[in-house]
Amino acid sequence: MARFLKSKKEEIGLAPDALHFRGEKKSNKVLLTVIDYDSENLCEVSAENVEEVIHYKNSQTTTWVNVYGLHDEKVMQEISTGFELESIILSDVMDTHARPKLHEYDNCIYISLKMLQYNEKINFISSENLVIIIKQDIIISFQEKKGDIFEPLRERIRKSKRRIRTLGTDYLAFAIIDIVFDNYKYIISRIGDKIESLEERLLSKPTKSFLIDFDKYKREIIYLNKSIKPCRDMTLELMKMESEFLNDYLEVHLKELNENITHSIESAESYREILIDQLNIYHTTVSSSLNDIMKFLTVFSVIFIPLTFIAGVYGTNFDYLPELHFKYGYFMMWGVMIFSAISMIIYFKWKKWM
Amino acid sequence: MARFLKSKKEEIGLAPDALHFRGEKKSNKVLLTVIDYDSENLCEVSAENVEEVIHYKNSQTTTWVNVYGLHDEKVMQEISTGFELESIILSDVMDTHARPKLHEYDNCIYISLKMLQYNEKINFISSENLVIIIKQDIIISFQEKKGDIFEPLRERIRKSKRRIRTLGTDYLAFAIIDIVFDNYKYIISRIGDKIESLEERLLSKPTKSFLIDFDKYKREIIYLNKSIKPCRDMTLELMKMESEFLNDYLEVHLKELNENITHSIESAESYREILIDQLNIYHTTVSSSLNDIMKFLTVFSVIFIPLTFIAGVYGTNFDYLPELHFKYGYFMMWGVMIFSAISMIIYFKWKKWM
Amino acid sequence: MARFLKSKKEEIGLAPDALHFRGEKKSNKVLLTVIDYDSENLCEVSAENVEEVIHYKNSQTTTWVNVYGLHDEKVMQEISTGFELESIILSDVMDTHARPKLHEYDNCIYISLKMLQYNEKINFISSENLVIIIKQDIIISFQEKKGDIFEPLRERIRKSKRRIRTLGTDYLAFAIIDIVFDNYKYIISRIGDKIESLEERLLSKPTKSFLIDFDKYKREIIYLNKSIKPCRDMTLELMKMESEFLNDYLEVHLKELNENITHSIESAESYREILIDQLNIYHTTVSSSLNDIMKFLTVFSVIFIPLTFIAGVYGTNFDYLPELHFKYGYFMMWGVMIFSAISMIIYFKWKKWM
Amino acid sequence: MARFLKSKKEEIGLAPDALHFRGEKKSNKVLLTVIDYDSENLCEVSAENVEEVIHYKNSQTTTWVNVYGLHDEKVMQEISTGFELESIILSDVMDTHARPKLHEYDNCIYISLKMLQYNEKINFISSENLVIIIKQDIIISFQEKKGDIFEPLRERIRKSKRRIRTLGTDYLAFAIIDIVFDNYKYIISRIGDKIESLEERLLSKPTKSFLIDFDKYKREIIYLNKSIKPCRDMTLELMKMESEFLNDYLEVHLKELNENITHSIESAESYREILIDQLNIYHTTVSSSLNDIMKFLTVFSVIFIPLTFIAGVYGTNFDYLPELHFKYGYFMMWGVMIFSAISMIIYFKWKKWM
Amino acid sequence: MARFLKSKKEEIGLAPDALHFRGEKKSNKVLLTVIDYDSENLCEVSAENVEEVIHYKNSQTTTWVNVYGLHDEKVMQEISTGFELESIILSDVMDTHARPKLHEYDNCIYISLKMLQYNEKINFISSENLVIIIKQDIIISFQEKKGDIFEPLRERIRKSKRRIRTLGTDYLAFAIIDIVFDNYKYIISRIGDKIESLEERLLSKPTKSFLIDFDKYKREIIYLNKSIKPCRDMTLELMKMESEFLNDYLEVHLKELNENITHSIESAESYREILIDQLNIYHTTVSSSLNDIMKFLTVFSVIFIPLTFIAGVYGTNFDYLPELHFKYGYFMMWGVMIFSAISMIIYFKWKKWM
Repeated sequence: MARFLKSKKEEIGLAPDALHFRGEKKSNKVLLTVIDYDSENLCEVSAENVEEVIHYKNSQTTTWVNVYGLHDEKVMQEISTGFELESIILSDVMDTHARPKLHEYDNCIYISLKMLQYNEKINFISSENLVIIIKQDIIISFQEKKGDIFEPLRERIRKSKRRIRTLGTDYLAFAIIDIVFDNYKYIISRIGDKIESLEERLLSKPTKSFLIDFDKYKREIIYLNKSIKPCRDMTLELMKMESEFLNDYLEVHLKELNENITHSIESAESYREILIDQLNIYHTTVSSSLNDIMKFLTVFSVIFIPLTFIAGVYGTNFDYLPELHFKYGYFMMWGVMIFSAISMIIYFKWKKWM
Repeated sequence: MARFLKSKKEEIGLAPDALHFRGEKKSNKVLLTVIDYDSENLCEVSAENVEEVIHYKNSQTTTWVNVYGLHDEKVMQEISTGFELESIILSDVMDTHARPKLHEYDNCIYISLKMLQYNEKINFISSENLVIIIKQDIIISFQEKKGDIFEPLRERIRKSKRRIRTLGTDYLAFAIIDIVFDNYKYIISRIGDKIESLEERLLSKPTKSFLIDFDKYKREIIYLNKSIKPCRDMTLELMKMESEFLNDYLEVHLKELNENITHSIESAESYREILIDQLNIYHTTVSSSLNDIMKFLTVFSVIFIPLTFIAGVYGTNFDYLPELHFKYGYFMMWGVMIFSAISMIIYFKWKKWM
Repeated sequence: MARFLKSKKEEIGLAPDALHFRGEKKSNKVLLTVIDYDSENLCEVSAENVEEVIHYKNSQTTTWVNVYGLHDEKVMQEISTGFELESIILSDVMDTHARPKLHEYDNCIYISLKMLQYNEKINFISSENLVIIIKQDIIISFQEKKGDIFEPLRERIRKSKRRIRTLGTDYLAFAIIDIVFDNYKYIISRIGDKIESLEERLLSKPTKSFLIDFDKYKREIIYLNKSIKPCRDMTLELMKMESEFLNDYLEVHLKELNENITHSIESAESYREILIDQLNIYHTTVSSSLNDIMKFLTVFSVIFIPLTFIAGVYGTNFDYLPELHFKYGYFMMWGVMIFSAISMIIYFKWKKWM
Repeated sequence: MARFLKSKKEEIGLAPDALHFRGEKKSNKVLLTVIDYDSENLCEVSAENVEEVIHYKNSQTTTWVNVYGLHDEKVMQEISTGFELESIILSDVMDTHARPKLHEYDNCIYISLKMLQYNEKINFISSENLVIIIKQDIIISFQEKKGDIFEPLRERIRKSKRRIRTLGTDYLAFAIIDIVFDNYKYIISRIGDKIESLEERLLSKPTKSFLIDFDKYKREIIYLNKSIKPCRDMTLELMKMESEFLNDYLEVHLKELNENITHSIESAESYREILIDQLNIYHTTVSSSLNDIMKFLTVFSVIFIPLTFIAGVYGTNFDYLPELHFKYGYFMMWGVMIFSAISMIIYFKWKKWM
Repeated sequence: MARFLKSKKEEIGLAPDALHFRGEKKSNKVLLTVIDYDSENLCEVSAENVEEVIHYKNSQTTTWVNVYGLHDEKVMQEISTGFELESIILSDVMDTHARPKLHEYDNCIYISLKMLQYNEKINFISSENLVIIIKQDIIISFQEKKGDIFEPLRERIRKSKRRIRTLGTDYLAFAIIDIVFDNYKYIISRIGDKIESLEERLLSKPTKSFLIDFDKYKREIIYLNKSIKPCRDMTLELMKMESEFLNDYLEVHLKELNENITHSIESAESYREILIDQLNIYHTTVSSSLNDIMKFLTVFSVIFIPLTFIAGVYGTNFDYLPELHFKYGYFMMWGVMIFSAISMIIYFKWKKWM
């Protein structure tokens, strides 16, 4: 299926609130984990059905429910009912191919993002959908499969008694997004590193493998751009949003997010431009090297062509061919040949072909 | 006639409200179908003249009148009179070549869109004009010919008792547009699939057929862009529109439409960029492969040219040519030849041409 | 003189209200025609001096004065005085090289446009300046020479008793601009038709004449763009303008104009992109065809070079050359030659050069 | 020094109001000329020091002081004191490399522009800085050296009793800028003329000199763009500025200026696009002509290679070579040769290489 | 590590206010220098720990604290506490890879910039982060290592009694940024100078070294753009900011800054375009020179190929070969050869290949 836009025929015309999973099933069972904390207490739970965690929604403490696996319509229905989310929201959650977006509902803020992973061996960026739903005192995040990208954040919650423990769900949401964005930067810096080393190789020994690499990097940069560019609009919208779920102290952090994503997009853009330059340089190098080859062939051919002709003339069997009977005819022939060759060499030196 | 902008000389200077059909006649007769429903009842009618369906306009229930075939000026006149639509609206309906647009009239909202169909065999996107007119309790849609693209929607209306049956004409209009947009996504994903597989072929075995494919895909992407780009302005305008025909609950759906069309446009843009990269890679590959050919010719020629020259020298018929009478003259000649060939081979190895 | 920007040294520093004709004189005499009408009456007059028509300015009926020929400063002075137009307006009218523009004066609206004409034989778009001045109950239009582009509109005025006869000068101005814009669409569709047929030729049999055609079409598209792009700003400005000379019912028509010009500009843009793709394809085709030629030469040369060398060796006149005296020496030579040729052919088959 | 951005190390860190001359000294002495006029009277003075002209600042009449030569810090200091201008203004005046800009100070409006001059012989645009300072009843303009570009304007002031004499300093400023902009148009039309004639040469006989011309024109167009693009922002800012020094009647003239500069920028843009197309066409022509050369060489070589081989075979000295002793052996050889050559020619005709 | 975006895996998920140094350690110890002045007094101090300078924060005079070296978390903590700056600010200060930005906190304005340094020998722009924090009566600037770029500014403070001594911290901040921007201009003018001289070399003697130079300059221009483009947004934001720390008299200077940075960006853009043109010209030159080489080879080969063939024919050993026994056979052969060669030469002259 096409990588940049996935769509199936049977999905055309579905109701917008139908709980239909769009994506590849990446985990077998649905798993729910909960971290519930305030500045003093912390409690972590892992469950496989919704009832076990549903009671956290009434706690005054900050609760982070993480759902791994989105394919199970029944579970989604339970979450929808349990956490009082409209079914259109869960329908969006289950569309893992959707464009990153932000929407403010009456009782929650919906944020969807792409979590990217860069496989350096095969130069391939894979993407997973992440949805964050911000409610009063509770954040529900949805991932396609279990991963460890948010482990550093959980560690900070467990160990630190600082801001992360005292501030509410909005700061937690910021911290989640911040990790995703930091990851973008890391991926771009890795891919950028490779592109820069490609550059060195390009000028020292340009080989055909460059084209394969160019193609891969260029495609991944396009994929990256497509995944992260919508995030800038999202952070700008978040900055302008006046929501009860977002406190004033968040402003500086949102601006930080916006700076970060802008930095990433601009860097990706720089690498895109560098790649295009590299292809142009490679193409010109190829043409230039053809010139060298042709010069060599031409010089060599043109020197020997007259010599071979002269030898051919004296190889003819005419009855009357006076030069053949000159005493030094053979040496005179060599003299003419050497003179011709030297003239040609001088001519090519002058033409700068040698 | 030009595909990207169709215009005939005789259409210059027509009155803007003249009922003149601009397009290719795609159906012989005009056909009207009606679905009239509320949350409890549903009634479907198919008719060939306007009088049979005109009475639905007074019903309190939601009515969807679909008109197939736009070429008949008489029928259009009857619709204009019957449903109280200004003749300038019907004139617009009959211009199937117009750009997608949205206009708010006093008693209705006018939306025109391109319905696209992708023939995968010949890589060709064909386009049909769709007009949706939203009035109080009635939607009139105009298509050029009978098709089954909206069948899933009709099924939802027939079977489901949910939102689609309880909400009004605005939700129905959204559902219609949603199907058209879903179809755009599907087409882009199909064409994108082909472009991505082109890429694999490009690097493994680049052949001339690539140019033909490139040309086709590129042209279809341009055609697609031209058809769908105006839709983004349209959805943005719809979101900002304050009309009595659009209820508040529609906002989330309109935002969804906007996200969808943006996603499609961005994906088409990505594929456009990928195609351009592919052409550049192909061109560079061609140049690079010319280099290989020329290297081979040069190496081969340059090795044999001196050998042939030497043989030529000893083929001359000079009376006095001492080497010919050496006992091992012939083998000495071979010695010189082999030495010359080996020197050349070493030189080319050093030059990295072999 | 340069086609895209015409400017003469002597025009630098002229007063902005100086009645100085800038352009090529396209008609000898100035001709004025008048159509004066309301819903009941219609009167047409043709005159050669201003006094004959000046009295129409006081009539309550809609009056359309058309002036053909702008070179005569005396006549322009008379029009300025007669119709109470500031001399700076007439000065603008006489600058036929100016950029299309819209300006609202105290007692009139000034609109200037380019009327284009496409000579299909030589692929050349010629341009003529059209100025429309909208006053209360009177429209004065200025053309460089007599033409028949507005004849359909005059026919509509003569025959129809509908909108065109009942609505005022603003609707008439819209109808004039509408014809000019329809003409743009027609020209783009004609030129587009040619560009699309160029595409077919490009892939089936690319010849050098393609470059000449490409150059022509590209230049005309650039010229077209330069002439019509300012019109979009103009229609947007018209839509936002709050003038006593523009009635509310015009809004839908102005939006129509804006859609039309946007459609034209986008189509021209599509054709521009298609042309650029075509040049790239052509260039790649040329490189690719060079590859084929070189492969052929290389294969042929490389097969025969060793054969000729072998024949050369046995053409030498050494006293002692054992192979020459073998009984089947000649046939052994042929054997070696055939073996060498077949090896080469197998090698080239493997290399996919044959 | 770099042409597009001139900056010296010693200028880093200078106080913004330091009177330091940045530029090339183009005149030896500072010269001041004054035109002082109202609708009735006119007086012209030329002076070499500031005191002689300082008294004009109190006259009620319109005064235009023109300063030629900006390098003398002492004179600048006197002007600053004499005409009550902040030293930061004079510091700006002395920076001849600055970007065109507009600034509104408390007691004046500061406008700086580039005056361009096109040397057609060497295809080089040289630039001179012009500063206009608009105060109540007085305009001070600064030029780097004496020139005659404003002579037509002075003539209009001297001769005409019309607008220029009755309106104030703002109209005079407009007239000065208008001349500078007219000059831009003239330069673009001259350079455009050359580019268009380049186009004709390109297709009829493409030679290497095209590259040199392309390079020159392209660089001058970039230089031009850089000099005139900031002027559009300037005129837009002027149109929005609400200053006591600008009267309402100026609005139409400022709009005119804006149209003019936009026209110039768009034309330069068109020529830029045409130049890029030309380079692409030239490159493709070069590739295409290489194809022709290679076709010729290939056809010729491939026809003669087998013939030379056949002759070589019958030049061998084998004891037993039956064909040599056939009665018509020689003519049979010619027969084979002619047959081979004709086959090749037919093959090439079929391949369309001949 | 990638040059355009530096990011380490271990930095993902750090708290936004963690004092973690991101960058390369460029100095061993932290050094603090203080200039404290008003219009009358001036005092300079250099210290190695924070306590020695902390008392300046209460002085009424303008204080400029400069911190060299950002790697020491302990010192940063002390500065945070000592100067009452939130730890999130110091955390930002320590991220030397961040994008230039501007943020208004409750008790200060935070400005970060890139200080660039151009090593002309190796064509490499290195970058150092500069942070300026503007508080009431105190400016704290942070640099990665000790440098002398601000020495001219310190000299102005020491010597001059003018504006710099009388105006407050906002003017000082402007002066610091002004020096950084002046430096950008200087670097662009240096690099531009080299690019322009590259152009001359390109047309007179194009060699492969051009590609290496092109690659370097292009990459540095991209790097430059990425470093300075965010500064334009920053100056625009500064101009719109309404802060107690910025006085009205600063407006003209901020506009100046904005003009300067715009000038730099536009110049860099011009040089970027010139470089792209140069690569295209070089590529075309290479193709064009290949044409010349191939023409020469073709002309030479094609003249001699028939001659060698003729000699070959008369070198055959047929028993019956009449021409061999003609009296002037040998000279007739030469006649045919010379005729053939002259015909070819005439043909090539006509083809313009010679």
